[in-house]
Amino acid sequence: MRNNGISRAVTKRLPRYYRYLTALKEQGVERISSKELSEKMKVTASQIRQDFSNFGGFGQQGYGYNVDYLYKEIGKILGLDTERKMVIIGAGRMGQALVYYQGFSKRGFTLTGIFDKAPSVIGTKVGDFTVQSLDELEQVIKDNDIKIAVIAVPKLAAQEVADTVCDLGVEGIWNFALVDLKVPSNCVVENVHLVESLMNLAYNISVKES
Amino acid sequence: MRNNGISRAVTKRLPRYYRYLTALKEQGVERISSKELSEKMKVTASQIRQDFSNFGGFGQQGYGYNVDYLYKEIGKILGLDTERKMVIIGAGRMGQALVYYQGFSKRGFTLTGIFDKAPSVIGTKVGDFTVQSLDELEQVIKDNDIKIAVIAVPKLAAQEVADTVCDLGVEGIWNFALVDLKVPSNCVVENVHLVESLMNLAYNISVKES
Repeated sequence: MRNNGISRAVTKRLPRYYRYLTALKEQGVERISSKELSEKMKVTASQIRQDFSNFGGFGQQGYGYNVDYLYKEIGKILGLDTERKMVIIGAGRMGQALVYYQGFSKRGFTLTGIFDKAPSVIGTKVGDFTVQSLDELEQVIKDNDIKIAVIAVPKLAAQEVADTVCDLGVEGIWNFALVDLKVPSNCVVENVHLVESLMNLAYNISVKES
Repeated sequence: MRNNGISRAVTKRLPRYYRYLTALKEQGVERISSKELSEKMKVTASQIRQDFSNFGGFGQQGYGYNVDYLYKEIGKILGLDTERKMVIIGAGRMGQALVYYQGFSKRGFTLTGIFDKAPSVIGTKVGDFTVQSLDELEQVIKDNDIKIAVIAVPKLAAQEVADTVCDLGVEGIWNFALVDLKVPSNCVVENVHLVESLMNLAYNISVKES
């Protein structure tokens, strides 16, 4: 994976900027200063200017940023101007919940199918989708130029699924299985480890109590 | 919230240590050196020693750590030795998925109920639970000493729910709504912002492609 020299701490803040800019656009706000943005987002104005300077600064001119321009530019950096097709592997409760989840379709992520290996699940409906057999996965990925695979299978099955999809040309894995996946350099992984998030919460409650 | 002087970067790694120690215990491993643990976890041995030194070092004696002791001590730090009761607010797909999700019950998190305000949902079954009216929330929280509320409602409703549960004595919010919640000092929030996680993935794919 090429490293473009921008730290992960900065890039991880981009989705949150994007979320606030989306809200500003919806409210009809046309310009915003780094100071106003910083008050809304509870980060310092200098942090915002420093973050944005990594991407050329986005043309702040003393009187602030053009909200629409900033929204579009950050969207481009996040790759949201490109439609990305994805499949979900694992039609258990988490996989099903993700089918019904509305959030990603308007960000350019198009769900193409959901797959499972259990005969009792294959052929059942989940929303507008019919659960397909894992045997059909290769053809679907190739025919539809699928870039993202969502892994929502039990942890013991996750590495094998990851190996398969990376072999088939998938570029990104959104991993809900509680395991660290090993992937080749043509693939990137983003983890959603729910149990670990809940443990962080428990820890922060403990600290508060102590 | 009291600050115990340990950085968030360190404490965020604890759940992952705990996960690896759980696996080692399951495999019957009794002792492990920081070097062996570092190879498994793909972090440096010095990072591990440095992290553990924040908590007194856990008695590493040259020949390694006692796995069971380390597992228990990190579990205590994470507050996993205390049973914590939680409720889910919002019985949409995400709330329902979390009811069926198996991962947290064995970590000491006990689900006590699921709540919604929609009459069409109240009274329906989700697994072993019957969706209760939000009107009953106050009584349930008080009667059961509920410490954690999971917010799985639409983003426009989330702040009001957060205000309510913090008022009722809940100490931690596990927030799935795509909004930054404002909470009083008696409450802590841990966010699971799925759309932002997917945007991070898209960004990392874009970087790889460029």
